Amino acid sequence: MSGAGTVGRLYGIGVGPGDPELLTVKAVRLIQAATVVSYFAKAGRRGNARGIVDRWLDGTATEIPLHYPMTTEHRFDSPVYVATLAAFYEAAVGVLSAHLDAGRDVALLSEGDPLFYGSFMHLYIRLRGRYPVTLVPGVTGMAGCWAAAGQPMTWGDDTLVVMPGTLPLAGLVERLSTAHATVVMKLGQNFDKVRTAIEHAGLLSRAIYVERGTMDDEIVMPLANKAAGPAPYFSLILIPGEGRRP
Amino acid sequence: MSGAGTVGRLYGIGVGPGDPELLTVKAVRLIQAATVVSYFAKAGRRGNARGIVDRWLDGTATEIPLHYPMTTEHRFDSPVYVATLAAFYEAAVGVLSAHLDAGRDVALLSEGDPLFYGSFMHLYIRLRGRYPVTLVPGVTGMAGCWAAAGQPMTWGDDTLVVMPGTLPLAGLVERLSTAHATVVMKLGQNFDKVRTAIEHAGLLSRAIYVERGTMDDEIVMPLANKAAGPAPYFSLILIPGEGRRP
Repeated sequence: MSGAGTVGRLYGIGVGPGDPELLTVKAVRLIQAATVVSYFAKAGRRGNARGIVDRWLDGTATEIPLHYPMTTEHRFDSPVYVATLAAFYEAAVGVLSAHLDAGRDVALLSEGDPLFYGSFMHLYIRLRGRYPVTLVPGVTGMAGCWAAAGQPMTWGDDTLVVMPGTLPLAGLVERLSTAHATVVMKLGQNFDKVRTAIEHAGLLSRAIYVERGTMDDEIVMPLANKAAGPAPYFSLILIPGEGRRP
Repeated sequence: MSGAGTVGRLYGIGVGPGDPELLTVKAVRLIQAATVVSYFAKAGRRGNARGIVDRWLDGTATEIPLHYPMTTEHRFDSPVYVATLAAFYEAAVGVLSAHLDAGRDVALLSEGDPLFYGSFMHLYIRLRGRYPVTLVPGVTGMAGCWAAAGQPMTWGDDTLVVMPGTLPLAGLVERLSTAHATVVMKLGQNFDKVRTAIEHAGLLSRAIYVERGTMDDEIVMPLANKAAGPAPYFSLILIPGEGRRP
């Protein structure tokens, strides 16, 4: 897929919410054709995106895991966090550029969709001026979760608000109160605060907790039944819309 | 895929934003295995969802187009609109139930994702108590459009608001002013009002108009360059987030 003298192409590929069959036909084709396959992973882990595509790789691609230097040791707005992540992204750019400069195509995997809260975007904005890029949208984690819950999300003129659990309590309550349908992402250590906000907004009875939606061990339950404490990485809360329906 | 004496299974299948390669592997497998394939279409048209899956059908399935009785002749909140659509959905339920009762599996197609503003949902809520259902999430139209635009949508702690252009001007401006990132769907006759709202919110310079994203004839342009007048069905406006990015 590459010729001498020309640079390689960067593919930003969404691998969907977790079920390996929820990759698109295009994603599978491009991953299987790529000379280099790269993905983000926590230190010491294989990486969620890599796990999702396992059945689609035949072992012939050069694999480049990009290991985050840390995840939750520092607050996201601390100078050390920002500087460390920036250095990590620059180093990743260097590694991938070497392959692209040598004319090798690179498929960079993203859980869900690559342009929706994806780490892919941090490399994309650094590389897109220098190499040709093809973007392959994916099924988002939230769409996988509302399918797992069997829950229509938005009807007719419903407004959907997708918000991160990292917002302060008052900001969460305010946004919950104006939305017809809501998805709260990035629960983690924010779970108890998010639950409190949903109670304050009077929406607890409509809220659904989903963990690892579309994966073999998915969990769906009323938020009211979920125990307190931090929530795992692949989890979110859905408050479905109730708009007009003839 | 069906046995005598048992009812068939309803599959709610998202076919993605338009590019036929953006169906999921699971969607293709289930569409090809279904005895009956059904889809919504405007009167006299083949239907967008049917067009998207054309290359995946081999002609052996029984096809059931569900032709809308009307689209824009009546206001969505008029009694005649509501009654006519309700009767249409009930008739469609009758047609599909006959196949399901006879033990035949039915794949009902949705553009984008089946549970996100999809007509599928109106049949799903009427059928799910009577037949087993499998839901297959899809790549949404909006994800196809932000990929077509090459535009990262949400960073870090950005909030995304998805709103229909059918909202009144003041409601549009209010929501635009609080969101970090915005998608405005259902433009149609609302296009000029939506553009005015975006100008009032001071966001025109960041807004991108996308038509038929991921299709061969896709159009991406600054909203500021788009001529006034109604916008076609497969169109939306993106205002990407600008959140933290190390």
